Amino acid sequence: MPEPTKFLLSEADVPSRWINLLPDLPGEPLPPLSPATGQPAGPEDLTPIFPMGLIAQEVSTEPEVEIPEEVRRAYGLWRPTPLFRARRLEAALGTPAHIYYKYEGVSPAGSHKPNTAVPQAYENAKAGIKKLATETGAGQWGSSLAFACSLFGLECEVFMVGSSYDQKPYRRSMMQTWGATVHRSPSDLTQSGRSQAEHPTGSLGIAISEAVEVAAQDPDCNYSLGSVLNHVLLHQTVIGQEAILQMELAGEEPDVIVGCVGGGSNFAGLVFPFLRSKTSARIVAAEPAACPTLTRGVYRYDFGDTAGLTPLMPMYTLGHDFVPPPVHAGGLRYHGDAPMLCGLVKAGAIEARAFKQNETFAAAVQFARSEGIIPAPEPAHAIRAVIEEAEAAKEAGEARVILFGLCGHGHFDLAAYDAYLAGTLEDPEFSEADMEAALARLPEAPAIA
Amino acid sequence: MPEPTKFLLSEADVPSRWINLLPDLPGEPLPPLSPATGQPAGPEDLTPIFPMGLIAQEVSTEPEVEIPEEVRRAYGLWRPTPLFRARRLEAALGTPAHIYYKYEGVSPAGSHKPNTAVPQAYENAKAGIKKLATETGAGQWGSSLAFACSLFGLECEVFMVGSSYDQKPYRRSMMQTWGATVHRSPSDLTQSGRSQAEHPTGSLGIAISEAVEVAAQDPDCNYSLGSVLNHVLLHQTVIGQEAILQMELAGEEPDVIVGCVGGGSNFAGLVFPFLRSKTSARIVAAEPAACPTLTRGVYRYDFGDTAGLTPLMPMYTLGHDFVPPPVHAGGLRYHGDAPMLCGLVKAGAIEARAFKQNETFAAAVQFARSEGIIPAPEPAHAIRAVIEEAEAAKEAGEARVILFGLCGHGHFDLAAYDAYLAGTLEDPEFSEADMEAALARLPEAPAIA
Repeated sequence: MPEPTKFLLSEADVPSRWINLLPDLPGEPLPPLSPATGQPAGPEDLTPIFPMGLIAQEVSTEPEVEIPEEVRRAYGLWRPTPLFRARRLEAALGTPAHIYYKYEGVSPAGSHKPNTAVPQAYENAKAGIKKLATETGAGQWGSSLAFACSLFGLECEVFMVGSSYDQKPYRRSMMQTWGATVHRSPSDLTQSGRSQAEHPTGSLGIAISEAVEVAAQDPDCNYSLGSVLNHVLLHQTVIGQEAILQMELAGEEPDVIVGCVGGGSNFAGLVFPFLRSKTSARIVAAEPAACPTLTRGVYRYDFGDTAGLTPLMPMYTLGHDFVPPPVHAGGLRYHGDAPMLCGLVKAGAIEARAFKQNETFAAAVQFARSEGIIPAPEPAHAIRAVIEEAEAAKEAGEARVILFGLCGHGHFDLAAYDAYLAGTLEDPEFSEADMEAALARLPEAPAIA
Repeated sequence: MPEPTKFLLSEADVPSRWINLLPDLPGEPLPPLSPATGQPAGPEDLTPIFPMGLIAQEVSTEPEVEIPEEVRRAYGLWRPTPLFRARRLEAALGTPAHIYYKYEGVSPAGSHKPNTAVPQAYENAKAGIKKLATETGAGQWGSSLAFACSLFGLECEVFMVGSSYDQKPYRRSMMQTWGATVHRSPSDLTQSGRSQAEHPTGSLGIAISEAVEVAAQDPDCNYSLGSVLNHVLLHQTVIGQEAILQMELAGEEPDVIVGCVGGGSNFAGLVFPFLRSKTSARIVAAEPAACPTLTRGVYRYDFGDTAGLTPLMPMYTLGHDFVPPPVHAGGLRYHGDAPMLCGLVKAGAIEARAFKQNETFAAAVQFARSEGIIPAPEPAHAIRAVIEEAEAAKEAGEARVILFGLCGHGHFDLAAYDAYLAGTLEDPEFSEADMEAALARLPEAPAIA
């Protein structure tokens, strides 16, 4: 085998610590604000819905956080994940670029989401909680939490965004196979859901409100979030730590690192360890033109959910009650992004680009026909950006090293591929009118310098 | 990590040779017979639908066959596959048994089938063939061949068994994503299909007839079979060769080896290398009670397909025109089994057991909730047998080592899980009347001693 295709690590290489980028960030951290008082929210504001173990991780300023042995052992079910060199895609593009991808689709749920679902279920079980409530977009997060709950003996209740519930029925089956209960959101089980009957396709923001409402009312039930928060990004840094070791095995350093961004956790998980180790790579975030938070949003305090139940967070936002069009990349249909990630974009450390739905599926099909793996619609955005980078390298005649995060497979997204191949897939875009409407409804909050 | 969960090999450990068990088999090999003459069929009978490279492998009596470098490189996209120790399942069962499984679901198509699809596509492309026609049951084989054809620039035309076409629509989407054309079988495109209009659910036997008919009529098109034939079993022996190395890493030798049997290729792929290396393990084949070829079939010459287009092969058979009930384990709905495997069953080297549909899904759900991976309905039969073996070890108080083949994931089989969880899954069984009808319609052929 003169030209290896995969760079594998052994189970002993599963990281023993998570990397907390908070101490490395430029400027003073901007605190979340309590929705009730407008004052900085402290750990006590989070105790109704999160266990102390996770709150401690959320506010930690330590540069590294130890991974509990039970979590590390559960990670061993699928980690370390493989790093591939995309030699067949390189050949198909005729590019001198070297393209690498870190593949998280080998987890039981098929994406990076179990990296945080497992420690979240573990900390809640340790705290004596009996049930977790959550939202899910495309279903990757809900199925990951259902899987993690099955490992630690917790009940799991999932509010699934209506458009994805209809497009991806087998994600629901998967959650049920692992023992979870699944509701279509907006549901009539919560006040937050009943108030959104005019948005039957739902949104992540609405589903979050429903799950938070359920968790806040039941002392045995906590809430669990699959992205955005500091502790979620923290848990995902196992991805980048492994990728650094694997790029060393490959004997190369990335010139460009690319990921897709919905709430930001898979992106941060790949990128933050490279930032900690002072990479000189350009960092590119790919998002949908239908929900272009980083490229067209405003940077200010906004709620994390539609109903305004969460703390106000400093981030790029399209407005907390913006309901994105039902593109198939359900995991990218979020009005905001992780505050840590937004700060880096604001500081110019990360470059963002938005792509239309059809061009991302064209990239995904080209990838599938050369590399074999059928990507989820979310990382198809990263692949689109990678193909542009590889073409730029070809024009420049440079063997640039491109690394990207292939955060999940598309086994539950094939109706979207059907639509793409049939030529019936739409290309919705965010409009000026959307932006004006969003700005008019932003909550009162202090401006960010 | 004091207790490893996974035993991984590096890409350099992808086997360089396939293992041909033909020279090791007891007694004189029984030749296939020409359907036209009743005389032993030679290589020349196969040239209308197979390339010489594969025919040479089909009739080879060499103990090992070298794997072409291009095939080995394509294997590197997903091989070596992981071997897991099922520690959480062991704990859930409270058994002293050590349970290991070789997981083939990490391939792009999600099963062991690409192990043979890739060399078949390679040999056909090398021979100048432009298109491959094939059948598929649950869709694992068709999607694997579609994937392999996309790697070597071949067109691919798939006849998909009607019941699976209806139950698993996204397997069709997957094949189309890789560029294949898919027809519901029985179709009106072939004489073989038109003659079976009274069997709208179809069967593997009918779909084989359709694909063979298409290939025989077009000089640029060959036929490709996903199981049963010697060269297919040969290609699958990469599984068992890797498993032997991985069991060495684990420091254990199997006391029992278990696999599911449809046509026999995943089973043979795991078991044959162990037989070559003179394992002392008991070997157990698990099949569906709805299509109990090894446990209730008769051992004699029969056709491989419904229409009687293939050579007559010596095997256990339920009759070539038996249409099994539409159980969800579509890959096990075949009236016969690989002749090499049947000979070993006949000689008493392999023990066969049949299981009903609901008990296999109960085993699969228990597996998913402990190990994470959601199994395909086919290997759920193996898991059912493994749980019985683990319970027997518990009763005996013995730490027996059980190895089984988890030949694919169930991501496209979740409608079946829905039905199981809803309690609406049926338990069809093969009846005495089925057997009488089958026996009455067996072709004239010499008896087997």
